[in-house]
Amino acid sequence: MLIRKLDPKTFVHAYNVDLQMLYPWEGVVEPPFGAAWAVLAPGESTKSHAHQECETFFLVRGKGSITIDGERRQVAPGDVTFHQPFHQHVLENLSPSEDLHFITVYWEDRKQWNHEKEDLLRGRPKRVLVTAAPPTPNGELHLGHLAGPYLCGDYYARFLRLQGVDADFIFGSDDNCMYVETQAKDLGISGKEAAESFNRSIERCLEAAGIELAAYPRPWTSRHHEPLVQEFFSRLYENGELVEKEALAPFSTTDGTYLFESHIRGGCPGCGKAVVGNTCEACAWINDCVNLVDPICTLDGKPPVFEPLKRLVFPLSRHERLLRSVAAQAGMTSHVRALVEDALDQGLPDVAVTHPTTWGIEVPISGWEDQRIYVWLEMAPRYFAYAQHVNDSRGLTGGYEHYFKSPDAQIVQFFGFDNSFYYSLLLPALFKAYDRDIRLPNALVTNEFYLLDGAKFSTTRDHRILGETLFGSAPRDAVRFFLAYSSPELEETNFTMEAFHEILRGELQGRWLPWLRDLGRRSRRLFDGTVPATGDWIDNHHSFLRRIEELLKVAEQAYQARTFSPQRATRAMMELVREARRFGVGERFWADVETRSEEKRTAFALEALAAKALAIMAAPILPDLSRVLLEALGASHSPGEDLWSKALDWVEPGAELSSLETTQLIPNLEDYLSGRSSSIA
Amino acid sequence: MLIRKLDPKTFVHAYNVDLQMLYPWEGVVEPPFGAAWAVLAPGESTKSHAHQECETFFLVRGKGSITIDGERRQVAPGDVTFHQPFHQHVLENLSPSEDLHFITVYWEDRKQWNHEKEDLLRGRPKRVLVTAAPPTPNGELHLGHLAGPYLCGDYYARFLRLQGVDADFIFGSDDNCMYVETQAKDLGISGKEAAESFNRSIERCLEAAGIELAAYPRPWTSRHHEPLVQEFFSRLYENGELVEKEALAPFSTTDGTYLFESHIRGGCPGCGKAVVGNTCEACAWINDCVNLVDPICTLDGKPPVFEPLKRLVFPLSRHERLLRSVAAQAGMTSHVRALVEDALDQGLPDVAVTHPTTWGIEVPISGWEDQRIYVWLEMAPRYFAYAQHVNDSRGLTGGYEHYFKSPDAQIVQFFGFDNSFYYSLLLPALFKAYDRDIRLPNALVTNEFYLLDGAKFSTTRDHRILGETLFGSAPRDAVRFFLAYSSPELEETNFTMEAFHEILRGELQGRWLPWLRDLGRRSRRLFDGTVPATGDWIDNHHSFLRRIEELLKVAEQAYQARTFSPQRATRAMMELVREARRFGVGERFWADVETRSEEKRTAFALEALAAKALAIMAAPILPDLSRVLLEALGASHSPGEDLWSKALDWVEPGAELSSLETTQLIPNLEDYLSGRSSSIA
Repeated sequence: MLIRKLDPKTFVHAYNVDLQMLYPWEGVVEPPFGAAWAVLAPGESTKSHAHQECETFFLVRGKGSITIDGERRQVAPGDVTFHQPFHQHVLENLSPSEDLHFITVYWEDRKQWNHEKEDLLRGRPKRVLVTAAPPTPNGELHLGHLAGPYLCGDYYARFLRLQGVDADFIFGSDDNCMYVETQAKDLGISGKEAAESFNRSIERCLEAAGIELAAYPRPWTSRHHEPLVQEFFSRLYENGELVEKEALAPFSTTDGTYLFESHIRGGCPGCGKAVVGNTCEACAWINDCVNLVDPICTLDGKPPVFEPLKRLVFPLSRHERLLRSVAAQAGMTSHVRALVEDALDQGLPDVAVTHPTTWGIEVPISGWEDQRIYVWLEMAPRYFAYAQHVNDSRGLTGGYEHYFKSPDAQIVQFFGFDNSFYYSLLLPALFKAYDRDIRLPNALVTNEFYLLDGAKFSTTRDHRILGETLFGSAPRDAVRFFLAYSSPELEETNFTMEAFHEILRGELQGRWLPWLRDLGRRSRRLFDGTVPATGDWIDNHHSFLRRIEELLKVAEQAYQARTFSPQRATRAMMELVREARRFGVGERFWADVETRSEEKRTAFALEALAAKALAIMAAPILPDLSRVLLEALGASHSPGEDLWSKALDWVEPGAELSSLETTQLIPNLEDYLSGRSSSIA
Repeated sequence: MLIRKLDPKTFVHAYNVDLQMLYPWEGVVEPPFGAAWAVLAPGESTKSHAHQECETFFLVRGKGSITIDGERRQVAPGDVTFHQPFHQHVLENLSPSEDLHFITVYWEDRKQWNHEKEDLLRGRPKRVLVTAAPPTPNGELHLGHLAGPYLCGDYYARFLRLQGVDADFIFGSDDNCMYVETQAKDLGISGKEAAESFNRSIERCLEAAGIELAAYPRPWTSRHHEPLVQEFFSRLYENGELVEKEALAPFSTTDGTYLFESHIRGGCPGCGKAVVGNTCEACAWINDCVNLVDPICTLDGKPPVFEPLKRLVFPLSRHERLLRSVAAQAGMTSHVRALVEDALDQGLPDVAVTHPTTWGIEVPISGWEDQRIYVWLEMAPRYFAYAQHVNDSRGLTGGYEHYFKSPDAQIVQFFGFDNSFYYSLLLPALFKAYDRDIRLPNALVTNEFYLLDGAKFSTTRDHRILGETLFGSAPRDAVRFFLAYSSPELEETNFTMEAFHEILRGELQGRWLPWLRDLGRRSRRLFDGTVPATGDWIDNHHSFLRRIEELLKVAEQAYQARTFSPQRATRAMMELVREARRFGVGERFWADVETRSEEKRTAFALEALAAKALAIMAAPILPDLSRVLLEALGASHSPGEDLWSKALDWVEPGAELSSLETTQLIPNLEDYLSGRSSSIA
């Protein structure tokens, strides 16, 4: 039993009082306060003092007087005094013969000082640039694009902001990619018109999907993009990182067109699969178009002819040593890591960074006016431009160094696995060749292909569901939820309308909403529509609280860049709802037992806490539901606040929870689902 | 000046104390603790309670005693007590005339909660008697019976043995229950014949379901049962615990038959639902047949006549105080606890323990030869008999005291909620009336009703699926898995054939077996059919290992009696398989990178470890799969060994894992499912 007796042998004398120090109790407990039993001798006074702690005296025995900031008052057993920090106070024993006993409790409370709140973000970066591979404006965004870097980046950035981190998500369009021109030709319009039209559609889709971007910069209109690209290219050239090289290159036998990217196809020299020029979507290896197996010109359908051509190349192999150390540090999946190791072991190629074409940014080197900068070189300074657009959106004047050179900042890069060679090898080498002090992304977060009914999304075969179409008919949170649930994070996953509807029915409509509505209903019936404070605890309560804590931890890990898994985050929420619903059902019987109102209060407060934890866990993926739910719980998220760390703070007693009974938590979900293909629940 | 006086006008009464709430002091300060001045009236005690906060009492005036977790100590002014979170404590004012004053200060400290968990772990018993309410041999066992106490008790006992605890599961039949005779009459056979035939069928079913029993004792053949019952009854009588009471009782107007249990029906005096005599299946309240609403004799369909009758009764209300303290200690669901509290508040009845009938055990008291012992009195010594049968099965000579009086032993009791009044009130009182030193069950684990296609199982309406039928056609593990997945632990759950097949297809056939087979296949292709030792580690590996650890903890808690949840244990396994499969897919690329064989080894060893963790987590529910899987992993469970704690020990390098590729892990699962109603995967 933990009990202590008043024992003069243990007294320490301080402030002219005998003190038995009680808390902290060594080896037993360290409370957020200190406490002592104090004995003031007859006729004596405490030393007059002012300290930074808040303090309270509980008068226990004897009679005395207290003076605070010059004001004097008699005190007797049962009196309790409170001393604000830095206020002078003195206690006097008025008896000539009897000790005066009091208990003193003291604690630090910086709010009482009016000092600035301590930075809670110790150890965390101050700001994070979350970015994704830019979409090519040669088509609309379909679910495959969205389920990949775009929604994942949004989940991640929202998670960081929820933790009080200053995070921005940004990406723009890849207008200079050859595919834009090719697609425009097919449509009989100009490349500019095609880019313009598809970019508008992409922006509409991103908005409909609730993807919050600091900006959507386009290379042709960005005031940062071209200057940064040309400066980047020039410096590399001046540093001798780009060298002239004559090598064979493919040309059309019909009209002599230089062939690369979308103009040529053949077998991947790495895995043998059918690919177009330069990149393999399957194994992510790059090719130089010459080493394609049985190459065919896509313009005339004939085999190309190979002729020598001078281009500027970036000799990637010079950076092997650097890339080995980069690979060891960056967060990446084993799939990407294996590709990197394999490429390093097989030897790195020279990558042509100029091509004789009329599409793209001009080469800013005299004598190279007839070639254009390769889009994958453009990709590196593009991210500098993104950083500067973020600065613009915040009204900051700094350059990209604010993110790319500051130890306070981190960069997290999202992209599809098929771009891995570029993001894990080419770009790090380019960045470091440009400036050794550039800080590389802290994590590369990739996704695999998302399938539709078991086959790859394809615009040419019209095997796709456009983002705008689905987000236009189903509730935003519902689509985001399912795309997270089936996120193609480490392997291909599949979208089917049946599975989409089944999961919505089984989870959101079947479990989440009924539980939350019922919570509101019970709040109204049992607690006048509010949330009670906790009372007495039994085993079940303890066990349920532990479960909420555990699931929050699972979700937190799933939202971290290096262990990113929207699937797991989603399942943690599903599990939380199952547990909470089960707990609520199991505890409902307290309502009938008058003498156990304390248990009833604890149970309900815990269920409300589970709803709050859900609102916080769900915020990155289901922002609409989260906002409405937090509001009903009397909570909200102010910018810069670490709301995540408050997930286990009790719901403020008095929150008007009964609103959950009628509030539309996921607007139109029921309407949307009624009449859709039915399934087994 | 911030000062407050002790002022009875501001007192609030809570926990049976007058409290002047001091902190937080509204508008002044919100300390990181709460504080109040407390006054306890002469002779009074605080309500015994346990809350999540740390708490300290400063004794200021008067004299009292404090009891913390059963330990009692006198306290006086100057004493300071500290109560860890969730420890039961009660303070008593020992003075008949003076108030006792103390200051209470309380605060939340989650670090203190972890100590608690360790305490619980240290308290592991040496041996446990796991037992369940005996089935009545008036019909075959259907899935509703099995999903309740019988499979749950088996899961639990197997879990304990897995942890090296000496646990036995035992229950027998309730042959002396009136329902046996009633059913026999309907079938036109003797009661003995009916009991004989149904008991044979029950034993076949238990065996088919893989329920491991130390014995299945039958009252008529057990060498312990009748002697113990008669001795128990006699001692209660001698101790004055059973008293003669004349009261009205119902009789048939046709032939004067005494009516109780199956012979009479009417409305439950508690909830109004239609019930038969003595017990309500819905609200679990008992009735005395006289207080039934509109009673009808089931023999002739007519209202009964009420006449005075002398019976021996057990005045339950004498034991109210004891039952209150029992209720505070035993593990039970909130549903049961609410029933107990409600019953205690409403006043406990006299329970008739003899009835004028010819079915059952004779009353061993002279003058009472024309009455028989009530089966619910017989129920208490029945468990003594079970304990002795367990001794017999182990070749031990000790009596029931080996379990019922030893501090090394625990008893865990499984039953359906409808029996709660008996198990949580009548039986504890009977045990303690018989012998104060009897140790009561550590936990009462209940289940709610299991439904079939949304309606209650019913033998009369033939709305049921017999255990023998389903276990006769589907693999044993598959049925056990689904009944655990849908376990009616806190609320009614539902069995449908569609859901059964869907879950088997989606989980066992769709995820578990393909993953394990593939593990065997990869073992053969990559590591000569064995498991490698670990090599180099990357982030993903650590994160996966942590996930396995977490899920083991979730399952461990779900298997504990006080937080028993087969549903949760099952979901933890499902989650483990999802995580492991995903991890394996994500790590498969190492296979192609010569220089990274160390990562490949770590990844594969981790996946094998996940398979081992699954085998151990699954052992209580899917014992067949677990055994075969452990064997393939080169592990096994020797009696008395704590295999659970070894779940994270590496699979011995060299284990012949390739056998998983071809081994039948769940024999006949595929055959069983082929051709069954299809569903959306």
